[in-house]
Formats: sequence, C-alpha cells, structure tokens
Amino acid sequence: MPKTIKKVAVLTSGGDSPGMNAAIRSVVRTCSFHNIQCVGIYRGYQGMIEGDFKEMGPRSVHNIVNKGGTVLKSARSKEFMTVEGRKKAYDELIKAEIDAFVVIGGDGSFTGAEIFNKEFKFPVMGIPGTIDNDIFGTSHTLGYDTALNTVVECIDKIRDTASSHNRLFFVEVMGRDAGHIALNAGIGAGAEEILIPEEDLGLERLVESLRKSKAAGKSSSIVVIAEGDKIGKNVFELKDYVEANLPEYEVRVSVLGHMQRGGAPSCYDRVLASRLGVKAVESLLEGKSNFMVGMINDKVALTPLLQAIKGKTEIDRELLRVSEIMSV
Amino acid sequence: MPKTIKKVAVLTSGGDSPGMNAAIRSVVRTCSFHNIQCVGIYRGYQGMIEGDFKEMGPRSVHNIVNKGGTVLKSARSKEFMTVEGRKKAYDELIKAEIDAFVVIGGDGSFTGAEIFNKEFKFPVMGIPGTIDNDIFGTSHTLGYDTALNTVVECIDKIRDTASSHNRLFFVEVMGRDAGHIALNAGIGAGAEEILIPEEDLGLERLVESLRKSKAAGKSSSIVVIAEGDKIGKNVFELKDYVEANLPEYEVRVSVLGHMQRGGAPSCYDRVLASRLGVKAVESLLEGKSNFMVGMINDKVALTPLLQAIKGKTEIDRELLRVSEIMSV
Amino acid sequence: MPKTIKKVAVLTSGGDSPGMNAAIRSVVRTCSFHNIQCVGIYRGYQGMIEGDFKEMGPRSVHNIVNKGGTVLKSARSKEFMTVEGRKKAYDELIKAEIDAFVVIGGDGSFTGAEIFNKEFKFPVMGIPGTIDNDIFGTSHTLGYDTALNTVVECIDKIRDTASSHNRLFFVEVMGRDAGHIALNAGIGAGAEEILIPEEDLGLERLVESLRKSKAAGKSSSIVVIAEGDKIGKNVFELKDYVEANLPEYEVRVSVLGHMQRGGAPSCYDRVLASRLGVKAVESLLEGKSNFMVGMINDKVALTPLLQAIKGKTEIDRELLRVSEIMSV
Amino acid sequence: MPKTIKKVAVLTSGGDSPGMNAAIRSVVRTCSFHNIQCVGIYRGYQGMIEGDFKEMGPRSVHNIVNKGGTVLKSARSKEFMTVEGRKKAYDELIKAEIDAFVVIGGDGSFTGAEIFNKEFKFPVMGIPGTIDNDIFGTSHTLGYDTALNTVVECIDKIRDTASSHNRLFFVEVMGRDAGHIALNAGIGAGAEEILIPEEDLGLERLVESLRKSKAAGKSSSIVVIAEGDKIGKNVFELKDYVEANLPEYEVRVSVLGHMQRGGAPSCYDRVLASRLGVKAVESLLEGKSNFMVGMINDKVALTPLLQAIKGKTEIDRELLRVSEIMSV
Repeated sequence: MPKTIKKVAVLTSGGDSPGMNAAIRSVVRTCSFHNIQCVGIYRGYQGMIEGDFKEMGPRSVHNIVNKGGTVLKSARSKEFMTVEGRKKAYDELIKAEIDAFVVIGGDGSFTGAEIFNKEFKFPVMGIPGTIDNDIFGTSHTLGYDTALNTVVECIDKIRDTASSHNRLFFVEVMGRDAGHIALNAGIGAGAEEILIPEEDLGLERLVESLRKSKAAGKSSSIVVIAEGDKIGKNVFELKDYVEANLPEYEVRVSVLGHMQRGGAPSCYDRVLASRLGVKAVESLLEGKSNFMVGMINDKVALTPLLQAIKGKTEIDRELLRVSEIMSV
Repeated sequence: MPKTIKKVAVLTSGGDSPGMNAAIRSVVRTCSFHNIQCVGIYRGYQGMIEGDFKEMGPRSVHNIVNKGGTVLKSARSKEFMTVEGRKKAYDELIKAEIDAFVVIGGDGSFTGAEIFNKEFKFPVMGIPGTIDNDIFGTSHTLGYDTALNTVVECIDKIRDTASSHNRLFFVEVMGRDAGHIALNAGIGAGAEEILIPEEDLGLERLVESLRKSKAAGKSSSIVVIAEGDKIGKNVFELKDYVEANLPEYEVRVSVLGHMQRGGAPSCYDRVLASRLGVKAVESLLEGKSNFMVGMINDKVALTPLLQAIKGKTEIDRELLRVSEIMSV
Repeated sequence: MPKTIKKVAVLTSGGDSPGMNAAIRSVVRTCSFHNIQCVGIYRGYQGMIEGDFKEMGPRSVHNIVNKGGTVLKSARSKEFMTVEGRKKAYDELIKAEIDAFVVIGGDGSFTGAEIFNKEFKFPVMGIPGTIDNDIFGTSHTLGYDTALNTVVECIDKIRDTASSHNRLFFVEVMGRDAGHIALNAGIGAGAEEILIPEEDLGLERLVESLRKSKAAGKSSSIVVIAEGDKIGKNVFELKDYVEANLPEYEVRVSVLGHMQRGGAPSCYDRVLASRLGVKAVESLLEGKSNFMVGMINDKVALTPLLQAIKGKTEIDRELLRVSEIMSV
Repeated sequence: MPKTIKKVAVLTSGGDSPGMNAAIRSVVRTCSFHNIQCVGIYRGYQGMIEGDFKEMGPRSVHNIVNKGGTVLKSARSKEFMTVEGRKKAYDELIKAEIDAFVVIGGDGSFTGAEIFNKEFKFPVMGIPGTIDNDIFGTSHTLGYDTALNTVVECIDKIRDTASSHNRLFFVEVMGRDAGHIALNAGIGAGAEEILIPEEDLGLERLVESLRKSKAAGKSSSIVVIAEGDKIGKNVFELKDYVEANLPEYEVRVSVLGHMQRGGAPSCYDRVLASRLGVKAVESLLEGKSNFMVGMINDKVALTPLLQAIKGKTEIDRELLRVSEIMSV
C-alpha cells in the first residue's frame, strides 16, 4: 500500500517557459487546499541533489501567476544522469521528509523522473513545460500558446517594414525538432511560406513559390523557418540561395531567438498551468505516480511518463493545407 | 441535385470580434484557391438587403489577418427580421449571381441565416464570431481567446495598483449570459473571487470569502464579475454592499467595457479563423449547407445551425473547482 | 554646516504610478555607488510613523525596473498631517539613524515633505511620481508617458469596434484637474474631440463638431474626456445630452479607470526614474535639501519643493491647435 | 516674392519608422485645414521621378495614426542622386502643379531635398523619421521612442530566461553610428553593460565589469550592444572572447533586428508626428523653405536642412554616468 502523501515538492527543469510560475503556484496552493505541505526545489535536479529546498505556502506564490520565467530557477544537471547523483537527490528528499515531487519541464526532465521513480519507488508526476509543444499526451505544453503570440507580434512588426519596402523577410523561430511554432505562428502571421523539420519541401519548391508570389502581385513576403527545418540549410544559407536564384528579391533575415521563451504568459497558459497543477497534486494524493498531466480533447488527462517520452507528436496535416491555401 | 457553387459571399454580422478579418481573408483566399469568385457584403444583413457588395480577390485581404474589427463592417438589421427584408436580400444575391454565403457572427446572425436557408433553399454556412464563447458546437468562438488575453492584461495592470495600496478591486468583464470570460480570465488573472451568470454564490458567501482572504493575509484582492452575474446586483451595488459589510475594505470598481471586443487577434484566433474559413467554403463546395463550422476536440467539425442556436454551452465545473483551489 | 549624509531613506506616497519601482531602484543603487546606506520605508508616511523600515542593497532592487506599482507600497496618512504624527515619524527616523529621505509622489506628498523639512530641519528631496503630469518644475512626471501609451492602446482597441459599427465612443481618461493625459492621448489616438478641465468648449460646440464630423463623412468617432472636464457633466450625462441632440448617433461610453495607473513602465519612464533617482541622492549628498528633481528642457533640474507645489502647469496651447487641425 | 503654395506633396524616404503614417496624416490634414491640396508620393524619390502620385484628403488618412510602416511606402533611389533623375522628378512635380514637398526621412533623404531645393528653388521641408535618433536639430526623431519601448519589451522577455538560468545575454540593438537606442534602452532594461559606437570601453573593461557583477552576487546579466559598437567586434566575436576569458559564464546572443523598425507607434511618436506635420506645412505656407522641423527643449523648432545634415548629435554624458551607477 502506498505511503500517505504529506509533503510534495515541486521543481522546474530544463529550458524555462511562460506559465511555469503559474504551475508552481497551482501546485503550492493545491497542496495548501488539501492541507499538505509543499516544498520548492531550486535549480531543478541539481538543487534536488544539493538539498536546495524551501517551504512554500499560499502567500509565497502571490503575484507570480503572470510572470515569465521560473521563481524556482532551472538548470540542467549532469550529476542527476548518474546513479550516484540520483541517490544523493533521494537522500535529500528523504531527509526533508518529502513524499513525492512534481516536475515541470520537457522530455529530458521526464526521463529523469521516470528513472528516479523506477529506482527508488518514489512518487513523481510531470507537467509539460516547454514552448515547443513537442510532448506526446497533451495538445498544449505550458508556454506554447504564449510563444505563438510572441512570434506573431514580432512578425507583425517586421511586416510593417516588409510592406513599406517591398521586401522578402526570412524569420527564424524556435523548433529544432518540431514545427508547431513555425506552422501555427506562420499561419497566424500570414506567412507566404513555412519551413518545418517535419517536411522537406525542397529548395526548388520554395524558389518557385516565391516566384509565383511576385507574379501574383504580392509586394512583400514573409517566410517563417523553424530552426530545424528539413531543407538542411540555416537561414543565412537559405537567404544566399534565394538571392542567387531570385535576383529581384532583396532578402532580410531575422532570428527571433530567446525572447520566444519569456514574457507574461497568455491567459490560456495561465489557466492550463492552474488546471495541470491541481491535477498533478490530486493524482499523487490518489496514489497515482509516474504520469504526465496534459490536455487531451480539452480535458485534463493522464499519460504514463514513459509514453509521454517515447510518443511522437505529429504535425497536423490539415494545418499544412490551410497554410498552403492561405498563401494563395 | 444542388447547383454548382461558383460565387460565394461573405459577411460579418452582430457585434464584432477579433479574428473576423482573418476569417474574411480565409474565405476569400479559399475561394480563390478553388477558382471560384468571392463577394464581400458590407454591414451585415442590412448590406445584403441594400446590395452593398464588392468583389474580393486574394490581394484585397492583404495585411488584415492581424487587424481587429471587420473590414466589411457590421450592423444589426431589423429589416432582415421581416419576410420582406429577407426577400429583398435574396433578390440582391440572385442579381449578383451569388450561390451561397458564409456569415461570421453569433446566435442572432445564425438564426437569420437558418431562416433564410429554409425560406429560399439558399446555401449558407456559419462561422462563430463573438468574444463570449457562448455558442454550442465549438470549444472556441472567434475572438474569445483574444478577449481573455485583453482582460488578463488589464487586470495585471490593475493588480499593480491593488497591491501597492492593499485594496479590493471589482472588475466587470463582458458576459451577459455566459461566464466563460469571467471564469477563465479570473483564473488567469489570479482573482480571489469570480461571479458568473451560471452560478448564484450568494452575497453572504462573497462577503465570507473576502473576510477569509483578509484573515489569510492577502493584502489585496481582485474580484472578477461577469456583466450578467447571478447575484442580481450590478457592480456598483455590489461595491456598496461589500463596503457596508466589510468596512475594513475600500473597494474600487473597474468596468473594462468595449476594449474587450477589439485589438489584434491572438495567434490562436488567427489560426482558428483560417481553419474555419477553409472548412466553411469547402463544405459549401461539397454541397453541404446550413451548418456552423467549429472546433470540437481540437478538430474542425460541422454542427447543424439549428443545433448551434438551440444548444447550450455549459460552464466547465472543473474550472470552478480550480478557481476555488487557486484562491486558497 | 549640514550633517554628513550617511543613510538615506526612500518612500513612495500617494497614488502609485509606473516608474516608481525604477526610481526606488535608482535611489538604492546610487546610495550604494556612493557607499552610503539606504533604507526603504513601507506604506509612505504612515510607515514612517510606524517605523516600518527595511535596509536595502543593490540586490534587493533586482528585477524591479520593469514592474508597475511600488514594492514599498503606498498609502495616504492622516496622522502625518498632524504635528504629533510628524513628530513620531521624526523620532523613528532618528532612531534608525536616517539622515535624509527621498519621497516619490505628487503634490500632497511634497507638501508633507516640505512641512516636515521646515519643522525638523530634516533634509528631504522629492521625485515627481504621478500619471497626471500636473506638477510644476518638470516636463514629465513618472508614469505619465506610460499612462499615455496605455490609453492609446485601449482606444486603438475601442476604435476597432467603433469603425466596424459606425459608432460614437466617449472615452473617459484620468485627469481630475489636468488635461495632459486627455489632450496628448486624444491626439495620439486620433480622437475627434477632446474635453479637458482647462477649457470650457461648451456643449453646443461639441454637438456642432460632431455634426460636422458626420457631414465630413466620418463613419465613426472617438471623443476623449478627462474626468474633470470643464463642461461640468459626467460622461454619462454627456452621452444623454448628445444622443438627445444628435439622434443619428448611438453613443457608447468607456471609462478606462485604474488600469491607467499600472503596467510595466515605458522606456522613457524607466530612464527618467533612473536619472531622477541619481540626482535626488547626489543633491542630498551635496548638502541640498527641500527640492524636487525634474526634467526641464530635457535636462535634470532642481525646483524648490514649495515652488513645485504652488506652481501651475499650463496646458500647451499649441497642442490644442494641433488637436483641432487633426480632427479636420 | 515666393509663389503662393496651393498644393503640397508628402513622401517618406529611406528606412521606415513608426510614426511616419501619423506624420503623413498630419501633413494631409493640415493642408485640408488650410484649404490647400495635398498629394502623396509613393516610394520616396523614386516615385517622385516616376510621377507615382495620388491626391489625398482627410478621409484617405483615416485610421493610420496607429499603424507602423508607411502607407506611401519607401525606397532608396539611386536615380535621384543624379542631376538627370532630379530633373525628371522636378518635371513631374511641375506637371502635377505641386508647389512644395515635405519629406519624412533621415540624413540621406534630407541631403536629397537640400540639393533639390538648391537646383530648382523648389520649396522643401523635412520631418526627421528614423529610429536611430541621430539627426541634429531635434531631441527626438519619429520612431525613436517606439523603438526604445520595443527593445525594452524584448529584453524584459529575455531577462525572464536569463534570470531563470543564471545566464549572460548579449543583446544587439540597432545603431550603426549612434548609441542612443543602446544607451537608453540599456538603462531602461536594466542592462549591466552597454556598448555604443561613441565610446571605446575596451574589451578588458567589459570582462572586468562582468567579473565584478558575478562577485557582487548578480546571478544573471544583460549586455546591450549597438550594431556599431566601438570595440570593433561583432556580437558573436564578443561572445567568444568573453567565454574564453570568463569560463564561468555561458553567453547567449540575441540580435533583435528589424522588428525594432515596426509596430504601432507610441503615444509620444504619434503626438510628435502630428505636431511636426502641422509645423512643416504651416512653415511652407509662411514662405519658409529648406528647413527641418524638430523638437528643441520640448518646443517645435526649425533647423536649416544643411545644419541638420552636417550637425552631430552627441551622446548625453549624464546618461553614461547613470548607466554606470545603475549597474552597481
């Protein structure tokens, strides 16, 4: 029979994303609602190893629902990838009388939690926090919706200049392995072409499409490119290629970079964070462990951590089609 | 056998909402993609009656994906509620060789379309456009996500002042019959209490809850109130009541008002508009009629217009619970 | 000879405004730069009376330059208006070995400082913090520039709806005694008419102007109205009057309210706060006292507190003219 | 005696900047106010050469006060740099019965206007439009204030990530020859170091300063770098240098790029544009020519174009000092 949960820890791990603070707040307050204790672990698994803990109550998460980043800070920990490191972490948790933890992060963070759970039979629960939306078992990861808004707002600004000068802009957005941001923000920003890791459109097709755009009377164009686009050239090489093949175009490049990870979370991400935090804690209290909480068909649902790690999110083919139609 | 669709009209009707322009653009470009003609109807059904039409091509919707409001303008039409009015509208459509129309609007607009379809066997398709999210058959209406972000951004600002002065703020948001905005934006903004049309919490409970907040050490509080809250008092009467019963609080009122209907649409609303526009036109081309296109379980889906009008969207009980836990 | 300053206190007083935190940060860091101590006083003069102090170092103001509100909180203090109250405050300052204070606030806060300085020969310095820009001796008060941006962003949203529906909107903005916000934000937002406390345009002229607007083909109009407009009617009474006299118009009212006081400060307000904080502390260190630091002709300058309180800022007649020309 | 002005043209030239549309609107409406005609010239001087003109009235500039970019579009024209090109332009102006023009742009655009005026005795007036604020004779150029806000908002987002991960960020902002954006936005964003073209701080000093920051307990740092910083290395070379010398730091680079030129103008830029447009037209009507209108000591003032071109704006030494104190 599982031990009764009397104290839950929460940590953020891996790259930060908007909504992590709202999720921390939700975990802390749900614990308080159920009259159990809550402990914040600083700097991810590294802080777990070092016992960098702090008791948290409902007031200690006051006024953070709307803050980007993570008040618990985040870090990557090589030590936690070793048996010795995880043993140290376990000893610190036990010493602090912590009965379970909720980790907010991405694939790598879940992998750590999954192994830890196996090794020590320690109850863990995962909340998907990454702007890339590349985690199986949830339609939305924390921060994804906010990042989409950040990207379209940036491209709206770039479009002012593009339109005023009849220029072609290549805008690189985040997404090394997943094109969700590029595809959705590209449609949202009215991009003429969208290059994503999941599809190799071919350079010829891009050049052909831009040639058609010009012929169709488009005076300016935006091409949105995911970091990890399949064409296998980086955005500056693409610019050179296109300028060589379409001398009528002057191409400008904009790499949006890290600002995509920050900023006040959107309402969606705040509500999502609140819902997932409640479910994560209450699932632990019900004796469940080793799951990720996520959204499936607009409802909060559990997915085994292993499945969340191994599963693959597919790009929505319908969106690819919408993108093509919109750039007619 | 239904007539082949060669020319589709599009109009916006009722209150405007962010994303309407993106939906117009999508309808126009989808028509162009399928090599059929598209006509914009100005000022809703009134413009239909008056033949206020304009041919639209892919370039005429350039750079509107990110604009609030509606370039086709909107209006309410009493004349369209009469048989004579609708007959005039029909004659104008026929004169302009229009084979079908897509109406972007809310309940009232769909009711008009539904009757019109019945009377004249004229193919119609509806796209839900309203910030209130009170339409059956879609998890999201156009503009709802944007309105939520507008509201939380406003309350974030108000909270700066509330926190600096240890004050209690009552913030009235839109929603005469539906509490979706109040409930979601309330959770997103970290409101201590949320009053919605669907639930009568009772005045006593509100006062009690605020008393507890104070005792729990909260130095400032935000209460989010839907226009049509069940308590049956307007926001200024509520203020008087609370100040009479909780003299330790100084209450300030903020009525967010019409700005909730405007602004650049969020990425979500732009993508939603693009998807729904494609589906609306392609459904007409497939011979379907008298449906609303919407999102069900993250997929675009059709709902018979009559069902969309008659159906009732329920408030999500899980969210009520999350709201309660978050204000612990 | 004045006593050497070794410890400086800083407080915020009166209504909060964006940039106050940046000014606190600047005072604290300038003290640190000059190797003197700094103390934060909570809740304005009331906290001074109660000895609600906290030592502050450069790290304690980390990450607040961009936050609205005031981390020191603000309050109005009736007790400080009495000799006894001020004596208590003086005793607390002496007990904490504080040699001078910088108060960030408006007219009322400066009046308190001025009297306090007279009574106890205690060195004081004022930084103008209010969104109303109604303080003599500075072209800009802290928060004014931010409030202008907040107002135009709100009206941009309202205009989306106004344009879509061919409506007339009355937007009330802050400014009980000063029309700076209304006049500048009105021009910035493209308002057709602007009503301010400094000018009685007369109701007839407003109605006449709106009639002309309609005749000139304007399909929608925005009227910006300062709280304390001279016409002597509140915004709802104005609406009734105009609708009675111009039945062709449907008037909607929006009262922007407290959100005008909050939000992340604009770059201008952050830089202004930084400059004024440096000057305030360094002026005290130079033995100066009883001044307000402000901007005159784009340079930081000192004005005797008494003059800042008694002086009157005038509305810029050129701007009135620009406003008239813009609404042609 | 100068010819009476009956028709004024307006054009935007060089890089676009927020507020250009508001300035166009102001020129057009001021003409209308004075009952003279107004013509918009598309694509800068190139459009002037090609006679790409359009009559403009008060309604044709409806709803553009808040739009980034320029509705008249902009371009650089090599042809206008030749006598033949300018002669063609003159002929087109005469053919269209245009008596004077107002050019909104930067140094290069003014140089063109100045030569044109000399060659053809044609009345011209300049409005400074560039985000770089590097034009003599005005405290603010159009778009500068907006760009500052854009930059601090971006850095606020980056700081979320920097703080969460204890990282060092190098943020490159616009400014090839002028450090105004870097210096002001750097102070506004709370940067620890600011590198500008006007000052060679030396690489050693930067490294030393970052070393001290770390020692002072700063867990994360932002360095703002103008494109044309004096150190003579680009931002990626700087990163390599710093990482080689400060192995305890992991440096991330963000190049903000073209988004700095776009976006809805701030209230300040809209009001500035409105004021300058009025003054430009009215000065022409008074028989003045060959001036730039700008802001000096918060008042609209004229500066001879030649002086505006030749003069040099200095960086404010006081701001350099404020920046140093703030990063204590």
